[in-house]
Amino acid sequence: MTLDIDKGQIELAHGSGGQASDRLLRELILPAMGLEADRLLLDGSSVLSLASTGPGQLVFTTDSHVVSPRFYPGGNIGSLAVYGTVNDLSMMGAKPLALSVALIIEEGFAFKELWQILEHLGQAARHCQLNLACGDTKVVGRGQADGLFINTSGIGIQAPGLTLSPRALRPGQHIIVNGTLGDHGMAVMLQREGIAWENPIQSDAAPLWTPVQEILSAVERSGFATQTISCLRDLTRGGLAAILNELAQSSGQKLSIRESDIPISAAVQAATELLGLDPLCLANEGKFVLFCEPSVSDIVLQTLKAHPSGEQARGIGEVSEVCGGRVEIQTAFGATRLLDWRYSDPLPRIC
Amino acid sequence: MTLDIDKGQIELAHGSGGQASDRLLRELILPAMGLEADRLLLDGSSVLSLASTGPGQLVFTTDSHVVSPRFYPGGNIGSLAVYGTVNDLSMMGAKPLALSVALIIEEGFAFKELWQILEHLGQAARHCQLNLACGDTKVVGRGQADGLFINTSGIGIQAPGLTLSPRALRPGQHIIVNGTLGDHGMAVMLQREGIAWENPIQSDAAPLWTPVQEILSAVERSGFATQTISCLRDLTRGGLAAILNELAQSSGQKLSIRESDIPISAAVQAATELLGLDPLCLANEGKFVLFCEPSVSDIVLQTLKAHPSGEQARGIGEVSEVCGGRVEIQTAFGATRLLDWRYSDPLPRIC
Repeated sequence: MTLDIDKGQIELAHGSGGQASDRLLRELILPAMGLEADRLLLDGSSVLSLASTGPGQLVFTTDSHVVSPRFYPGGNIGSLAVYGTVNDLSMMGAKPLALSVALIIEEGFAFKELWQILEHLGQAARHCQLNLACGDTKVVGRGQADGLFINTSGIGIQAPGLTLSPRALRPGQHIIVNGTLGDHGMAVMLQREGIAWENPIQSDAAPLWTPVQEILSAVERSGFATQTISCLRDLTRGGLAAILNELAQSSGQKLSIRESDIPISAAVQAATELLGLDPLCLANEGKFVLFCEPSVSDIVLQTLKAHPSGEQARGIGEVSEVCGGRVEIQTAFGATRLLDWRYSDPLPRIC
Repeated sequence: MTLDIDKGQIELAHGSGGQASDRLLRELILPAMGLEADRLLLDGSSVLSLASTGPGQLVFTTDSHVVSPRFYPGGNIGSLAVYGTVNDLSMMGAKPLALSVALIIEEGFAFKELWQILEHLGQAARHCQLNLACGDTKVVGRGQADGLFINTSGIGIQAPGLTLSPRALRPGQHIIVNGTLGDHGMAVMLQREGIAWENPIQSDAAPLWTPVQEILSAVERSGFATQTISCLRDLTRGGLAAILNELAQSSGQKLSIRESDIPISAAVQAATELLGLDPLCLANEGKFVLFCEPSVSDIVLQTLKAHPSGEQARGIGEVSEVCGGRVEIQTAFGATRLLDWRYSDPLPRIC
């Protein structure tokens, strides 16, 4: 079945990061623009080969932020707009350098809230030592937008020699996550639905350049090539399940993970059980998955665990076979099942 | 009077490109982010001094496109999203290289229209030999956006030695426009209001890199330095009136223009008179103002006029005094008045 271009229309699912998003991109967005279907760059960052950049490649990325509500425990749309784009660059191994800020604001939006959000955005940018390089402000009428949308695009410089890509996945490589999963998605959802929780679950939103930089340095210091790190990906829309399925498909590898090793906080576990959600499908904003040669996985884990935010870092599985393009999960009871790639994320507007 | 941050709210005027936009930027957006008030970069392009870019500076810019209606005579939101950003780069004398495309789509948007728009976007990008480098797609619920918003950010390389800036304005320099004014604003407005016109006024939306490049080449070929071109600015939101006032303020110069020399098509003239609008306040999407030393103004005009699109290029005035920061217009009857800087553009969502 393919999209019915003549009669079909956009569903919320098309923005979820799941299979629906993937199909919209492959069957409509890329071909309509006349781009080849394998240029999936269009939903991520891109390495630019500019003759004049000299050593170090330029990396360019963009992300619009439409999260609802705009404030939630542990973050808000302002800091998210910075960290989201910083993290896209970090996953390419690129040091974030400059950010654009483009606002689409609904008529009637309170100055006070706009100030608060931009204050958080400015603080987050300074925290990441980022140059807020350019911007744009558009206003649309009442009812023509839901308050505020923020697009940030980012430029970074990738260290020479890095080859981070799903194409670098090989059987035997280890799969590592840098901490507990599902916190951002659950924090936003509970806030949105007005569900009071004894200890509010905090979004994990955080910039990921520092851990990535430290891992690459530690690997080199230990005498290994940075190519022992094959791929990084932040676990945003669609969560671990969507990102692993996407990586399995684009690499053609089978990925095998162990449910009992996946770190999930007790609070998120309890909330997902109560609400019938799968924490592996929830979005994160400060978590990533890393693929590496077994020779460096201890170095990676030690580097991550040296920080309070990385205490829960864990090896969760391996790349197991060349053929495949699918994700298997070994359950806590020892059985093995395919990890679903949902058609849509259960939560729209999570980032 | 300053903005009341505690109780004030966004008006449509704040997106107009007029004085209201300027105040929002200076009194809220920049200070909230902790940026200095003179870093007006935040509403335009920015030159990045990256150590690794080597010869030629990197230029970075962003623009969200919210034009309503999405299709109008002479263009649509897809091609506009490309040309708008290409033109921001061109005004910095930067060859456009790469573009990001970030879509915010309302639930229920027809696939067919999305395809058409993205097809136009792709064609415009190929026409400009642009790399569509990265992208993002977000979907929001019904009533949470007005159909489709497109953000494009762009990267370009500025030739070494260029010093295009309002700070380079000096008394005696000539002021040139590359053609008739008001066409885009009037085309969109007539379409939006459903006003039938015998010969529909076409938007002037067009990429400006080619004329800019040709002017810089012609100047150098004639033995002049490219620094004889002091400043370029595209005449988008707020039109000639807003852009000249902004340049007068940021340069501290007085700008004097002659009403009778400003090219306006008969159709736009008739439509503005009928509707009580000022063509100098209407947005353009393929027009720019250029400031240059008198020694090269003939070269600039000849270069522009060598193309069909530049037939109406014209010198419209001079930088007249150091003190000032204002714009004077000599009317067709010989009188002189200040050219108003409107609080707001008469037309929201023009680009």
